[in-house]
This record gives sequence, structure tokens and C-alpha cells, in this order.
Amino acid sequence: MIPLDTLTISELARGIRSGVVSAVAAVEACLARIDGVEPAVRAWVHVDAAGALGAAKALDADARRGVFRGLLHGIPVGLKDIFDATGMTTTSGAPSFAHRHPGADSDAMARLRAAGAVLIGKTTTTEFAYADSTVTRNPWNLEHTPGGSSSGSAAAVAARMIPFALGSQTIGSTLRPAAYCGIVGLKATHGLISADGVTPLAWSLDHVGIFTRSVDDAAIVLSVLAGSMPAGSGGGTPLARPPRLGIPRALFAGTAGRDVQAHLDAVAAMFSGAGAIVEDVAAPPSAAVLHDAGQVVLRGDAAAYHAAQFAAHADGYRPKIRGLVEAGLKTPAVDYVNAQRIRSQFKREMQPIFAQWDALLMPVAPTTAPRGFETTGDPSLCAPWSYGGFPSISLPSGLAGDRLPLAVQLGAGAGAEDRLLGVARWCEGRLAFAGAPPL
Amino acid sequence: MIPLDTLTISELARGIRSGVVSAVAAVEACLARIDGVEPAVRAWVHVDAAGALGAAKALDADARRGVFRGLLHGIPVGLKDIFDATGMTTTSGAPSFAHRHPGADSDAMARLRAAGAVLIGKTTTTEFAYADSTVTRNPWNLEHTPGGSSSGSAAAVAARMIPFALGSQTIGSTLRPAAYCGIVGLKATHGLISADGVTPLAWSLDHVGIFTRSVDDAAIVLSVLAGSMPAGSGGGTPLARPPRLGIPRALFAGTAGRDVQAHLDAVAAMFSGAGAIVEDVAAPPSAAVLHDAGQVVLRGDAAAYHAAQFAAHADGYRPKIRGLVEAGLKTPAVDYVNAQRIRSQFKREMQPIFAQWDALLMPVAPTTAPRGFETTGDPSLCAPWSYGGFPSISLPSGLAGDRLPLAVQLGAGAGAEDRLLGVARWCEGRLAFAGAPPL
Repeated sequence: MIPLDTLTISELARGIRSGVVSAVAAVEACLARIDGVEPAVRAWVHVDAAGALGAAKALDADARRGVFRGLLHGIPVGLKDIFDATGMTTTSGAPSFAHRHPGADSDAMARLRAAGAVLIGKTTTTEFAYADSTVTRNPWNLEHTPGGSSSGSAAAVAARMIPFALGSQTIGSTLRPAAYCGIVGLKATHGLISADGVTPLAWSLDHVGIFTRSVDDAAIVLSVLAGSMPAGSGGGTPLARPPRLGIPRALFAGTAGRDVQAHLDAVAAMFSGAGAIVEDVAAPPSAAVLHDAGQVVLRGDAAAYHAAQFAAHADGYRPKIRGLVEAGLKTPAVDYVNAQRIRSQFKREMQPIFAQWDALLMPVAPTTAPRGFETTGDPSLCAPWSYGGFPSISLPSGLAGDRLPLAVQLGAGAGAEDRLLGVARWCEGRLAFAGAPPL
Repeated sequence: MIPLDTLTISELARGIRSGVVSAVAAVEACLARIDGVEPAVRAWVHVDAAGALGAAKALDADARRGVFRGLLHGIPVGLKDIFDATGMTTTSGAPSFAHRHPGADSDAMARLRAAGAVLIGKTTTTEFAYADSTVTRNPWNLEHTPGGSSSGSAAAVAARMIPFALGSQTIGSTLRPAAYCGIVGLKATHGLISADGVTPLAWSLDHVGIFTRSVDDAAIVLSVLAGSMPAGSGGGTPLARPPRLGIPRALFAGTAGRDVQAHLDAVAAMFSGAGAIVEDVAAPPSAAVLHDAGQVVLRGDAAAYHAAQFAAHADGYRPKIRGLVEAGLKTPAVDYVNAQRIRSQFKREMQPIFAQWDALLMPVAPTTAPRGFETTGDPSLCAPWSYGGFPSISLPSGLAGDRLPLAVQLGAGAGAEDRLLGVARWCEGRLAFAGAPPL
């Protein structure tokens, strides 16, 4: 029997297209795996077994007539519960006062559906996609956080409950949980994937995020979701030669743990040995003030979105998002404008750096997934990529002494997704990470 | 003798290129005209006769060797005194505490110089390009305002002291004075022309503005200044058929005076008679709240730029700019974010409207140039184009009963400069405005 729940999108899509596997069988495999591991992992807010099986049956009927809807025909997907999907409540992690019953799909879900994806259900999100933990556990070690805010999407893909899921990243909410959970996490250039129909945290910084178990899969999903890319393109053109990789050490040297830095150096040395050019690069002047500026933008945008709801339900807000909104309500416009100016400066100053390298290489998080659930972990190493709106991807790169996944982050300039994915595919081949969580 | 001071850029450039006219003769003609009318008009902060003649001599020497620097070889220009030009003080209209001695040209001036333009000097600007009047008079009637904030640039071009000038438009600071002074005023899509080296009023809204006496000339200057357009392009492709023009009556019906609305209707009827399709179009929902939103963005950006200088020199600020900065310093970030969201909504909502029309047609200002100098006039009809960042152009369209110029405004979607200029050229041909101020 084919281990359907461990297949990648590309493997599963090939099987469905050739008739070896049905969409119904794929969905059933996912549901069976969910039955087995969900009680421990708790990645889902809602699983719509009947809806998913019904959709899969219709897709199988199409397939028998030779009709395939798109690149994701019959592929199961999980959706972070800040994305609208017709017929499912969107809770945004605050079901008691902030749920909505959308009449239409979010743009991203509409694109997935049009490409043939089958929605399995909604995955957990921290409240309003900020920093207050969910109930979700890390599949590699149930006593550790899976990261956040896209906790359920990362854990569900890592635990082989679904081949891919969508999340979001405002600061580090996609790449960090992907890293903690040993899977691939990708966010594209800000604005390339529509966030319409997704509960905002901070409009200036919100990105749709993609969780998969391979770079190829991430490229497929990106090509379906990206507004301005024709479906099927954007797959990451294979590199003609090993990549030139810059290490912007100033962006993580003061933050990343010693083990994580040693691991990055080992990975860099291994890439060098395989022919890559790997050198340290200086960070631009604005990098020193970027984090504070990004936080000002975050709280200003978040307070603007939440102001009315917060006035009515302040007591219902969990502590971290509550503190963020309160700080945002007190922020002067002048601080916000200055912060946005620093972001613009950073974008400008990074351009000549991006022009010299195929991608920049750095850790995704200062440590492996922290123990406990007080925190979803430190997003600060993902933050420059979110504040700049630049595409970035997290690749699993090994296991630490604690048997939790390690990861490396690759980033490139705005609009350079194709090159970034080409580099990521090269790096993925060298890393050859094949671990799976002990579930 | 050739009346050099009344020639357009294209006429003068042809003359210089063919050797009929020299750059020195062109500069001398401008200087003579300045000698004659500047005491009455007061358009200049500084005229650099020696520098201009020296530059013109060098250009003539080049021309004799068959070397032409670019489209503006030997063409005199005036620069609003918020633009940096090497060797000249930039006062920004507040010489007592805000002047600077720039070490480099603003990006726009550098492009003009590289194309062969000869800088005659700096023209008056309201203090920090806001609403406190300058000393400049309207050449059509010296008891009336020329408009602002680009008062000197508009008046100098209208009074035939120079063939073209640069100004800026944050709300209505280019098209309004162009309309009041009976000349052509153009601003391009926000960001298309670099504003680096120009004193900001509000980064989100600041546009470089172009003052000329014909649409052809505006197109030439735009092609020199626009970052992403190859020099010589962007000239406004001639229309294959009369244009389709939409009149967004809701944007001006409550504001424009009866005479101005009657004039617009007469112009529209004349265009219709010449084959144009002219119909009323509805304004989108966001238009109703756009003006308030734009004002919030204006004051937030202005306060962020001025905060430090204002703390040291508050008493030196004139009343209107002072009030603006004070209001901006008190504005919460949440209001600013909401205001920017409304601007984004307006941009989105205008797209389907722009898609249906070659351009939109409306008045530039509610009245002709007001009498006196208490106000620089009402910019609110220019404001939607500035808030949306859309290209717009003002064309002189007749004289009112008071012998002051009337004008019509054409606007199009972001990036549609070529089409807008094509429409403007067609309209200019039908309007056939040939008036000149009685100086």
C-alpha cells in the first residue's frame, strides 16, 4: 500500500493524474493520520471530513473524464484559521467574540480551490496571529512549542496529516514554525500573494505563508497563489552553477545561540565544499534600527485594525495581543511615519547587496523550538525579511542534540522568487534532510 | 528678431540644434524679459545670470562641435526653491532658519542638467511648499495670487521669463498655479519622477511638477525626468481617434463655482462636437472620505519631517504651516494608518473607472485666481489626483469675464502618462488657447 500520508504534493499529483491514486484515497489517508496523531498534536480547529470527501469524489469524477482542474487536483490542504473559506467559520483564534461566517473564499483559498486543492479544515492560529500560544504541540517533542503564529499549519504538515498548508507571516509566523517543525516554509515578496479575506495583523507586513515538505512543493503552491505569475511558472529555475551565498552575520550574531551559529557555519562549509561561494556580507546602516521601526509599524497597523473591536472586547483579548493593541493606540503618527521611512531605507540599502548574491543565508531562529508554551519562540531573525517585504524560505537542515529540527533561512530581493527557489532547491539537495517526527 | 522669450521648448531646441539660435541668445532673452517684468511679478528668489551665461557658452561650444547633451540642450529653466541645485542655496521659503547649501543637485536637476538645460535660478515657494503666500503676483492681474505653492515657477513661465520650470505638487501646488496663470501644469504618477534632493512636505503625496506652455513641452520634460522611461519616450502617442472622456462630477460639483462648471460643460460640449465621447462617471465610495484622509496623511508626514526643526524654530514658522505641523504632532498613528488605507481603497476603486475612459475631465480649481494674497487658492479639486498618486495635467482653456485664465484638468490611472499626454494634446488642439498675460 502506498504511504499516501507521507507523499509530497508532486508525488501525489503524479499519482492522481496517472490514475494510480484517487483524491478520495488521499483524503482518507489524511483523515486516518489525523485520527491517529491529532489527539497528541492538536493542530486543528475544525476538520471537515464530509466536505473534503465530497470534494474529492467530484474531483475523481472529473479525473475519470480526463478533466484536471489544475496543479493541485485532489491535493489535501489545511488552512490557518485566519483565512476565509466558504462554509467554515473563521475564528482568528478568538472564537468567543471575533468569529465570522464568510460568504466567500479568501483570494488564496479561491486560487487553491480553482487549482483542485481539497480543503481538509482549519488549523490553529494564535489569537489574531500574534504571540499568545495555541494548544498545538510540536510533533517532534510534544512538550515543545511548534512555534507560531501559524502553529497548526506547521504541526499538521510536519506530522504528515496533510501535504501542505497555508499560514501567514507578519514578523516570523511562517518560517519560524516551519523551522521548529522540520519542514519547508516560504513567504513571497510582500503583496505578491493576495491577503484579501485573511484576518490582518499588520497590513504593511502581512504575508501569506506556505508550508510544505519540499522546495518543489513550495514552488508549486507559490505558482498557484501568486497574483502576477502564470500558474505553473515560478517553480525555481535550476541553477546553472552552485550559488553565491552571502551571510549577513550582523543580522543574527547578537541573537542566535552558539549551537545555531555553529550549525550555520557547518552548513556554510558544506555548501562551500559542494562548490558554492559563501562569504560574510555587511548589513546596511538601517539594519541597526530596523527592528524597533518594524515593531512600531506592527503596533500601529494592528491597533488601527483592532480599535473598534478592542473598545468592545478588551477584556476578551489575551495578554500579548492586548498589550500590542494598547501600545499601538498610544503611538503617535510621527513615530509611525518615521518607522515606515526606516523600512523604505532598509529596502533601498539592501538592493546593492541582493544584486551581488544569489541569496543570503542565515539561521531562522536563535534556538530550536523552546520547551513549554509560554512563548511561541523568538521571531527576530525572520523579522528583517518581513520588514523588508523580501521573499524568504526556511529549509530543515538537521537535528540538534535535543532531537529537534534545525533550519537555515535563505532570502533574496523583492520579486526574486524564481532565483530564491532555484537556490533553495540546490541547498535542499545538499542538506538532504530526511527526518520525520517520532509519531 | 526672433521673439526668443515666447518660444516653446520644442521651438527653441530646434533652433539651437539647427544653429539658428544660440543657447547664450536664449539665456539673454530670458534675462532681458526678467529685467522687464520681474519687478512687477516677483517670481524669483535668485537669478544666476553669470552662471546661466557661462553654462550656455559651454553648451554653444559643444553645439559647434556637433555635440548635443540631450533633449534640453541650451533650454533655460527655473527651479522652485525647494529643489537642490549645486552652488545655490535652497531656502524652502524659510531662509532665516531652514536654508541649506547643497553639495549636489537634486535628482531632477541632475537629469535636467545632463539633458542640457540651463539653470536660470530659483523661483519662489510658499514656506515649506505649504499654504502661506509668497510675494509673487499673477502675471495676468498683479492684484491676484498666482496660486501656490509653486508660485514663482508658474508665474515665471506664464510671464514668458523662462520656457519651463519645475515645481512640486503635494495637494494642488502645480496644477492649480498652472491653471491660475494660463499655462500647462503636469504631475506624473507618484514616484515616477524622483523627489530626492527636494524639501519634502509629505513623502506619501509629494510629486515633482512640470510647468510649460504646451503639452509637447511637458512631454519632453517628463521624458527627461522620469526614472523608468527612456529619454525621448513618454511623449504622448497621438490618439488614433477622439478620446473617451469621463466627467467625475461628484469630485467637484459641490465645490466648483457656477461659472467654472458652466465653462467645463461648454468645453465638454465642444470636445463632443469634435468627436470625443464625453459622459458623466460616478465617483467611487471612498471619494467621500478621501479628502479628510489625505489631510491626515499630509499632516502626519509633514510633522514627521519637521518635528526636530519645529522644536527649535516653532516661532519662525508662518501660521498655516505651523498649524499643520502642530496638528500632525498630535495625530495618532491609528488615524494615520486608517487614512492611508482609505487612499489605498480609492486607488483600487478607481482602477475599473480608469479602464473605461481614456482620461477623466474636470476643473482644476473652483474659481479663477482669487484676488489678494491671503490665500493661494483652493487645492481641493487637484487633491484626488495627488491622494491617488495618479498623473494629471492642467490645460489653459479660456479667459473668464475677469480676464483671468480658466483651465481644465485631465487625469488618468497610475502609469498611464503616455495616454494622458496623447489625450491632452488632442484637447489642447481643440482648445487652441493662445492668450498671454498683459505684461
